[in-house]
Amino acid sequence: MKVGFIGLGQMGAAMAANLVKAGNELTVYNRSPDKASPLLELGATAAKHIADACHGGVVMTMLADDHAAEAVAFGDHGIIASLPRGAMHISCSTISVDLSRRLADAHEKAGQRYVVATVFGRPEAAASAKLFVVAAGAPDAVDSSRELLETIGQRTFTMSSKPEAANLVKLSGNFLIATVIEALGEAMALVGRGGIDLHAYLELLTSSLFNAPVYKTYGGFIADRKFEPAAFAAPLGLKDIRLALAAAEELRVPLPMASLLRDRFITLLAQGGEKLDWSAIGQLAAKDAGEG
Amino acid sequence: MKVGFIGLGQMGAAMAANLVKAGNELTVYNRSPDKASPLLELGATAAKHIADACHGGVVMTMLADDHAAEAVAFGDHGIIASLPRGAMHISCSTISVDLSRRLADAHEKAGQRYVVATVFGRPEAAASAKLFVVAAGAPDAVDSSRELLETIGQRTFTMSSKPEAANLVKLSGNFLIATVIEALGEAMALVGRGGIDLHAYLELLTSSLFNAPVYKTYGGFIADRKFEPAAFAAPLGLKDIRLALAAAEELRVPLPMASLLRDRFITLLAQGGEKLDWSAIGQLAAKDAGEG
Amino acid sequence: MKVGFIGLGQMGAAMAANLVKAGNELTVYNRSPDKASPLLELGATAAKHIADACHGGVVMTMLADDHAAEAVAFGDHGIIASLPRGAMHISCSTISVDLSRRLADAHEKAGQRYVVATVFGRPEAAASAKLFVVAAGAPDAVDSSRELLETIGQRTFTMSSKPEAANLVKLSGNFLIATVIEALGEAMALVGRGGIDLHAYLELLTSSLFNAPVYKTYGGFIADRKFEPAAFAAPLGLKDIRLALAAAEELRVPLPMASLLRDRFITLLAQGGEKLDWSAIGQLAAKDAGEG
Amino acid sequence: MKVGFIGLGQMGAAMAANLVKAGNELTVYNRSPDKASPLLELGATAAKHIADACHGGVVMTMLADDHAAEAVAFGDHGIIASLPRGAMHISCSTISVDLSRRLADAHEKAGQRYVVATVFGRPEAAASAKLFVVAAGAPDAVDSSRELLETIGQRTFTMSSKPEAANLVKLSGNFLIATVIEALGEAMALVGRGGIDLHAYLELLTSSLFNAPVYKTYGGFIADRKFEPAAFAAPLGLKDIRLALAAAEELRVPLPMASLLRDRFITLLAQGGEKLDWSAIGQLAAKDAGEG
Repeated sequence: MKVGFIGLGQMGAAMAANLVKAGNELTVYNRSPDKASPLLELGATAAKHIADACHGGVVMTMLADDHAAEAVAFGDHGIIASLPRGAMHISCSTISVDLSRRLADAHEKAGQRYVVATVFGRPEAAASAKLFVVAAGAPDAVDSSRELLETIGQRTFTMSSKPEAANLVKLSGNFLIATVIEALGEAMALVGRGGIDLHAYLELLTSSLFNAPVYKTYGGFIADRKFEPAAFAAPLGLKDIRLALAAAEELRVPLPMASLLRDRFITLLAQGGEKLDWSAIGQLAAKDAGEG
Repeated sequence: MKVGFIGLGQMGAAMAANLVKAGNELTVYNRSPDKASPLLELGATAAKHIADACHGGVVMTMLADDHAAEAVAFGDHGIIASLPRGAMHISCSTISVDLSRRLADAHEKAGQRYVVATVFGRPEAAASAKLFVVAAGAPDAVDSSRELLETIGQRTFTMSSKPEAANLVKLSGNFLIATVIEALGEAMALVGRGGIDLHAYLELLTSSLFNAPVYKTYGGFIADRKFEPAAFAAPLGLKDIRLALAAAEELRVPLPMASLLRDRFITLLAQGGEKLDWSAIGQLAAKDAGEG
Repeated sequence: MKVGFIGLGQMGAAMAANLVKAGNELTVYNRSPDKASPLLELGATAAKHIADACHGGVVMTMLADDHAAEAVAFGDHGIIASLPRGAMHISCSTISVDLSRRLADAHEKAGQRYVVATVFGRPEAAASAKLFVVAAGAPDAVDSSRELLETIGQRTFTMSSKPEAANLVKLSGNFLIATVIEALGEAMALVGRGGIDLHAYLELLTSSLFNAPVYKTYGGFIADRKFEPAAFAAPLGLKDIRLALAAAEELRVPLPMASLLRDRFITLLAQGGEKLDWSAIGQLAAKDAGEG
Repeated sequence: MKVGFIGLGQMGAAMAANLVKAGNELTVYNRSPDKASPLLELGATAAKHIADACHGGVVMTMLADDHAAEAVAFGDHGIIASLPRGAMHISCSTISVDLSRRLADAHEKAGQRYVVATVFGRPEAAASAKLFVVAAGAPDAVDSSRELLETIGQRTFTMSSKPEAANLVKLSGNFLIATVIEALGEAMALVGRGGIDLHAYLELLTSSLFNAPVYKTYGGFIADRKFEPAAFAAPLGLKDIRLALAAAEELRVPLPMASLLRDRFITLLAQGGEKLDWSAIGQLAAKDAGEG
């Protein structure tokens, strides 16, 4: 399939690589073009402009935030101006529900198809095509996107015919992960102060009721106090909680745990955590308790 | 082995049954004696008084709260007064760290051995001997208790030579479970308001990053709004969060998520939830959002 | 003095009336022009367009939110396009620090002067020229605005040479008022449940340590459960807390009480409180406690 | 009047001094007897035992906490055992509602009268007899106590015929003061980061909407970062919030602001604040924001 791919960060590059390897004819675009090199070696073509990535039937985007997604989609030479009628935009970025709704409207006016396919999984999962994909959009459009989505992930969950629903699910999922980090941070600050070995504690938790990857991964980071290098940096964590809270405010749903997480991320950033993994909020309970 | 067992609530009765079935010579005591009947049919002997359950080398207790545990242990005819020197008390109750420390002191003065063996798992797990057991105490005492503990659970985790450490771990574990309930309650209030089907959402979560029993069990209760009958009633949830907060205060560890949970449980009880399962706090975010 | 005045809501109309009565030659503009009638009777002139209010040396604005303030200031026929070089814009609206900074930049580029003069006080205080005015901007500009500010208020506090500092102070002040409402709501829910008469309790508080107008005013509303008509409606309260949180996030200052207030306002609006006074959040603690 | 007075801390000593100066025949008792010296110089008599302070018609107590109050009241030689039938105990201590209720029951059984008269005001106010007194109890008992209460305070507020209601009001009042400290701490962290001078900001607040002594006193401490010497030490602040939360839990009233304050006090103590004034929690928002 002829596919454009825009946004070659850690996640995007890994997803694009799997698309090339699966035999798709990929044209890739990134604001800083050097990120494209490894993909060109795999056989992808470099797009000089966004428009060059919009000539196939499908363009996929994996961008860092609303600002980037808005810049790429709108404007004189953006996706909406460049994509042919009937062609499809598959947006994988973690962006706001509000922007996604505006994208849906704009694509509809332009006679283009729009599917949101957000993904769960850290860069390793992206590299091994083990992402979980949450898709939403018009049923026929989601169907058309299915093969591509199965190429980047291990399973696709279709959630709604409204594309922005997949953004809401993604934001809620990152909120849930952050609650795990904070909860582990508090529990481990408590039992650690009580003299319990944190690795033994984590072994107990993850062998019994909490035998899920998120507990293992983040519990390990907290037990080791190891938050670098960042697979998902703290400012992105703050961004996602902010977007979850904004969506919740619009829907009139108070989320007290998300409010608490927002305060934690701001504290982390205020204390110099810009470069740390977002799981470094898991150290703040111990810090409040006078450690380190 | 000759074993006394005190406390025949939902959990205790199931644990005692497994001990009898495994061939132990069990003498059982419960404040309201009718609870003993099913065990007597299995071959256990009824104790008229607490002291009658203290004549073997071991007495196990599984009581509802500090009040009950204190009443059974102390006093003229309690465990400490009745147990022979060198005999062992295995305390499985979810009680305060403070009371457990006082029990440890009292047993030491009386020349008795004291092991704390708290358990994770709902009544079904107790019935099928699938509990996870968290043990702490003097290493030789824990060793002596191992066979009994393996009879009631699927795995025993030894955490510390200080008995009360197992109480702290148990309280921290119930705190972690409660954070899952609240986090799911908030996330599901949000995506539900956004038009997502809650069962599909839960399927996504528990097939991907959150594939742990607690998410399945409690997420299902919240999606179905089904909080009766209570396997673990709301007042017990409040009690455990209160005990976790008390232990944390003594250790000087602030736990903002536990504070939030405490407020949720009080709200639930204030609004008539005394008889509901503790997971009914998972409905409060939706209620705040104007539903139901 | 020839003065334009834009924004004739409850507050703006009262402020404008005092400016006319003090002898100023006032040209008034409001999006819905009927609001101008009482002022015309006092001697003001009606402006058909925003630009018509920009012909004197000064234009004052008192608008509901960022959206309104942005619409009035920018655009082809807005204040910035219409105001002569050297003329002054005095912005009294409660708007975001971010928008205020953008206004400062735009005015500077246009060679215009910009003073922020936010006000504290409810509509009665505006009517009797008893507002407290918080001014910020270039010292000579603030000096030039002083006579007008003294006409609408009882005292002017100059806080900074950066105009947007006065917006920050205003937002922080509304945050502080909201903390009083919430704190009173919680305290009164508690003592009320304990059988104390709420009016006697309020008399005690406001005769002793809390003898400030905010405690009297809002405590009375809560004791009487009287939140209509709204002098300052709940959605405006949410807006101001949101703006305070946004400013705080930019400055990397976590504000846990503001987070709590944000959740309260969302809950109030979710439960049908759009038309209530913002002090109706003071009823939510009692509601959580099962009352009403 | 012949009066016993037990508890000669900062507050109690000042109150006792005023009672002596007003001509009462005072017998004073303190656990560490040297505290009595200044009062003996004023004409008071020293009691060797608690019972010696119970021979007049009235004994007043001003003790640090539940532990001290319980020790003094109960036991073989405590107040309840020593006070004649018909004599009165006026309890001024900030103790739990629960203990106060137990005291009420015990006094009733012993045929003694029991009035609770809690006080608001810092040590300076106690010294100058400017306390605000909150009284509760049987109306005739409160009447009999009135002259004494007017000797120690500037005004007496009678709140209820149930003595423990005055304890609840006192705890709620200290909760309200703590909300002011926290709110000022957050607001001042915010505007300070925004470049506003904190003393000018405080002058604005306390000259306008927040012209109450608590804002002036505590705002000044926060602006000056001066939390020593402690007029009311941080551990007492934690104790009072804990007691307010316990009373609220019993009455089934969730108090989210009190939960937040509890976490703040634990953080302060964890970070070495045992000797600081309780208003030092007002520095924690700035600390979270990376200052100091």
